[in-house]
Amino acid sequence: MKLLPIEEIATKINLSSDYLTSHGKYAAKINLKSIDPIAKQGKLILVTSTTPTPQGEGKTVTTIGISEALNYIGEKAIACIRQPSLGPVFGQKGGAAGGGQAEVVPMEQLNLHLTGDIHALTSAHNLASAALDARLFHENRLRDRFTEKSGLPRLNIDKNAIVWPRVVDHNDRALRDIYVGKMAENLENVHPAAFDITAASELMAILALSKNLQDLRQRIGKVVLAYDMNGREITAEDLEVAGAMTAILQKAIEPTLMQTTENTPVIVHAGPFANIAHGNSSIIADDIALSLADYVVTEAGFGSDMGMEKFFNIKARTSGVFPSCIVVVSTVKSIKANCVTDNPTAIEMLECGARNLGWHIHNAKRYGLPVIVAINAFPNDTVEELAFIRSFALENGAVDCEISNAYAEGGKGASILAEKIVKACESDQKAQLLYGDDLNLQEKIFAVASTYGATEVDYSPEAMAILQKLEAEGYGNLPVCIAKTPASISHDPKIKNVPAPFILPVKTLQLAKGAGFIKVLLGDVMTMPGLGLNPAYRNIDIDEDGNIVGL
Amino acid sequence: MKLLPIEEIATKINLSSDYLTSHGKYAAKINLKSIDPIAKQGKLILVTSTTPTPQGEGKTVTTIGISEALNYIGEKAIACIRQPSLGPVFGQKGGAAGGGQAEVVPMEQLNLHLTGDIHALTSAHNLASAALDARLFHENRLRDRFTEKSGLPRLNIDKNAIVWPRVVDHNDRALRDIYVGKMAENLENVHPAAFDITAASELMAILALSKNLQDLRQRIGKVVLAYDMNGREITAEDLEVAGAMTAILQKAIEPTLMQTTENTPVIVHAGPFANIAHGNSSIIADDIALSLADYVVTEAGFGSDMGMEKFFNIKARTSGVFPSCIVVVSTVKSIKANCVTDNPTAIEMLECGARNLGWHIHNAKRYGLPVIVAINAFPNDTVEELAFIRSFALENGAVDCEISNAYAEGGKGASILAEKIVKACESDQKAQLLYGDDLNLQEKIFAVASTYGATEVDYSPEAMAILQKLEAEGYGNLPVCIAKTPASISHDPKIKNVPAPFILPVKTLQLAKGAGFIKVLLGDVMTMPGLGLNPAYRNIDIDEDGNIVGL
Repeated sequence: MKLLPIEEIATKINLSSDYLTSHGKYAAKINLKSIDPIAKQGKLILVTSTTPTPQGEGKTVTTIGISEALNYIGEKAIACIRQPSLGPVFGQKGGAAGGGQAEVVPMEQLNLHLTGDIHALTSAHNLASAALDARLFHENRLRDRFTEKSGLPRLNIDKNAIVWPRVVDHNDRALRDIYVGKMAENLENVHPAAFDITAASELMAILALSKNLQDLRQRIGKVVLAYDMNGREITAEDLEVAGAMTAILQKAIEPTLMQTTENTPVIVHAGPFANIAHGNSSIIADDIALSLADYVVTEAGFGSDMGMEKFFNIKARTSGVFPSCIVVVSTVKSIKANCVTDNPTAIEMLECGARNLGWHIHNAKRYGLPVIVAINAFPNDTVEELAFIRSFALENGAVDCEISNAYAEGGKGASILAEKIVKACESDQKAQLLYGDDLNLQEKIFAVASTYGATEVDYSPEAMAILQKLEAEGYGNLPVCIAKTPASISHDPKIKNVPAPFILPVKTLQLAKGAGFIKVLLGDVMTMPGLGLNPAYRNIDIDEDGNIVGL
Repeated sequence: MKLLPIEEIATKINLSSDYLTSHGKYAAKINLKSIDPIAKQGKLILVTSTTPTPQGEGKTVTTIGISEALNYIGEKAIACIRQPSLGPVFGQKGGAAGGGQAEVVPMEQLNLHLTGDIHALTSAHNLASAALDARLFHENRLRDRFTEKSGLPRLNIDKNAIVWPRVVDHNDRALRDIYVGKMAENLENVHPAAFDITAASELMAILALSKNLQDLRQRIGKVVLAYDMNGREITAEDLEVAGAMTAILQKAIEPTLMQTTENTPVIVHAGPFANIAHGNSSIIADDIALSLADYVVTEAGFGSDMGMEKFFNIKARTSGVFPSCIVVVSTVKSIKANCVTDNPTAIEMLECGARNLGWHIHNAKRYGLPVIVAINAFPNDTVEELAFIRSFALENGAVDCEISNAYAEGGKGASILAEKIVKACESDQKAQLLYGDDLNLQEKIFAVASTYGATEVDYSPEAMAILQKLEAEGYGNLPVCIAKTPASISHDPKIKNVPAPFILPVKTLQLAKGAGFIKVLLGDVMTMPGLGLNPAYRNIDIDEDGNIVGL
């Protein structure tokens, strides 16, 4: 592998270096002026997966591998992925750069900081929190004299109705549920608070859904930070902090160009998790890529019930840009791991586990597009196993099924898959959304729930009250972003394979006014992961030459 | 003003672009391999000031102006400054880029993010906190089975003896005094905690005092995060997190090259505050600059009682690198503001306020070097006022006194000052420290206290107990870092001008084992500022073209 200077990668896709701001030799931010709305005619390939197991399906490897393979067979292709969060890097999962011959490089730069966007986002997010608590402090301190002294209107913040947590890009369990406000001095300013991981920030969702800097500015102005003593919204605009937050994100709006081990261009941008946010790279990154390449391969987080559903019903609804085909990634091992029968034989494991694959193919087909199954190959896979999966996939509605050997062989190892993808994209089928804007929130939630196989939705009293309030306030036209476990198609990580039929519980709802969706939380959804018993950070260090090891 | 590509700035000082990692067109990180120990023969000029007033003395403007002026008169000069913290940028003070014709540009890049070092530092710092609380959680959760399950020794963290706060680079008062640990679930992990501003982090002091990446790694290993149930230190090495923290800082060890409005090279690195930390740019930045230029102008935070004292007794003690002369910056307005007489006339104001200047000249002269007074000129200054200050300065031991008109005129406006500085540097006087390593901690503290004019040091019972414990544990050989208000030479911001004689109270001491000093806190020292009633963020926004305004 030989890394090329990033300007050479740009030249491959006719991207002028005038649009680049380099961050070292191998990464550059791309100016949004490079988006050519007329040239925007590339085809988008959406990569999703079966229900993920702790071992992972190699979805990023396959996404990168397909982009390399398309170039290998002579097409011009770019991959679009999210920036990895430091939480998993130092926690359990490790980096998110792909691997083997299908990796984004330099891997250390991708996994740590990159061009600083996540740090900027954390900073912009927390400025709003500092500003809100400072206003609470000064309004309490000066009481009736506040307006006279400051020239500002009283916001009358209800300290128990602050809905904007702080964020940090680490797995810091101890910050999930805290008390802030100078406890020792004055209980008046003390209130419960929380930190989420940055990937869960509404600001991260906003970055990924914005069309340009002005759109970002408008959306940030709309975010609801808290409610006042009369239950009215207090937004970032009300606090006059939206402009400064946008200034902090002025450069974060620009995606970053990198390359793969085969020098295929990769555009990295934003990083919303797919369990607690919408789980897709940015609209801007796709727009740039589609105006530069014939094929753009993008990855949606977790299984098709998670990132893929949100790609369509949130991201594509906002952008108007739809894929030409959907690739469902799985592995032989992962399919077997979905089997829940007692003491099965090897082939029985595959047969019963494949039901999960079948569900994901069916789920992907709801959106009206050709679905291809990609088996991320491992050395121990047998011909019989692969033949079984292929015939199962075709019987269950996939237009094709092919292995990807990209980890071991790079683009060449996924070249047959790439040819089949190109063919599938030629069908030019018209995509459709799961629900229209005009359905009410309960109808939208049921539409998604029914794709999981749920027969009923059970709202907690809190959820129902919030739902009715949101409808009354005119937010019923927004799409829903279901926050749930990725480990099951249902809400319950213990229910493997295909959980239907079941009742889907809704614990609570949250308005994400800036992002433009309603978060629907099923049970306790983790918005701040914790470090495990044997965290990855223990193995990470610098060596004698100053190189990073163990990442 | 025309900005030059950063490679052209590097060429001016014979710095090969092989050593640069560009971050946009106008900023580049400098590889430490560029340090040539043989070529390191430039002269260092240390810029300090009189006791600062809220209006400021223009110390950064003068620092930048002197570096421009040295180039104007034909010398090769570089300025070394700290990276601004976002706290003041969005709070009250605004950016720290200098101004007028003596500004570091692009100002927006300097003030926001730059090359991401402060963000990296915040992240590395908070990883240790997350790791420590996670270990507490797992040891509590698994009890006697912890070692069996994890293969790791029990650390037996005393949750009430955690001395490593978290940090955030904002003025967030509400995080000064918090409770963390999932309060709702299990009180066992709940404990008091705090956030400091990143500039107060021991890690920031370490970055500024490290000689290279390996030194940084060793120092990080030594930082004390908490004490165990038997009162023994738990370090970052014990928690096996020091390597990962260093990996996060792998690029932050490299200073950033920028330029002034007159294209003079500026090296920006680290950002410890001078009230709560040692208040100087990095040893590495000085090393690089001194191997590239004949003159290096560096700024120490706040008055000479703050950053300058720490420059000598902490930074120079560590590096072995001393200045050739000291510049004390003041303004007519600031000198007048130091007057505390009732109803004075204009000249009386100047006469009584000048005592503060006299004290700072005297204080600077303790270190054995020539002291020059620089008056940062304003349009309203009169010839009589300037003549008075000049004669006062000379009578009080300054080798010279000259105005700096760098704000209005750039290097030309400080060219006479620069000539006088060059002349003063030629004296080659030998610098001396205030105290030797072998003095005990009380003697060291008294040595600094007596320079303030204190006749006695009054230790709280807590301070005395910690002092004796530190001596007993063998930390008596470390230098002391006095944390106090910058608004007075004493510990009390209300005591203006020259406070002697007085009794200096010491509230508590803290070991900064990685940084290699003992923090001595006088009264309540603010380690997390708050946002004021009319914070600067209100005026910051992006305009229609996406440019940042109001910074």
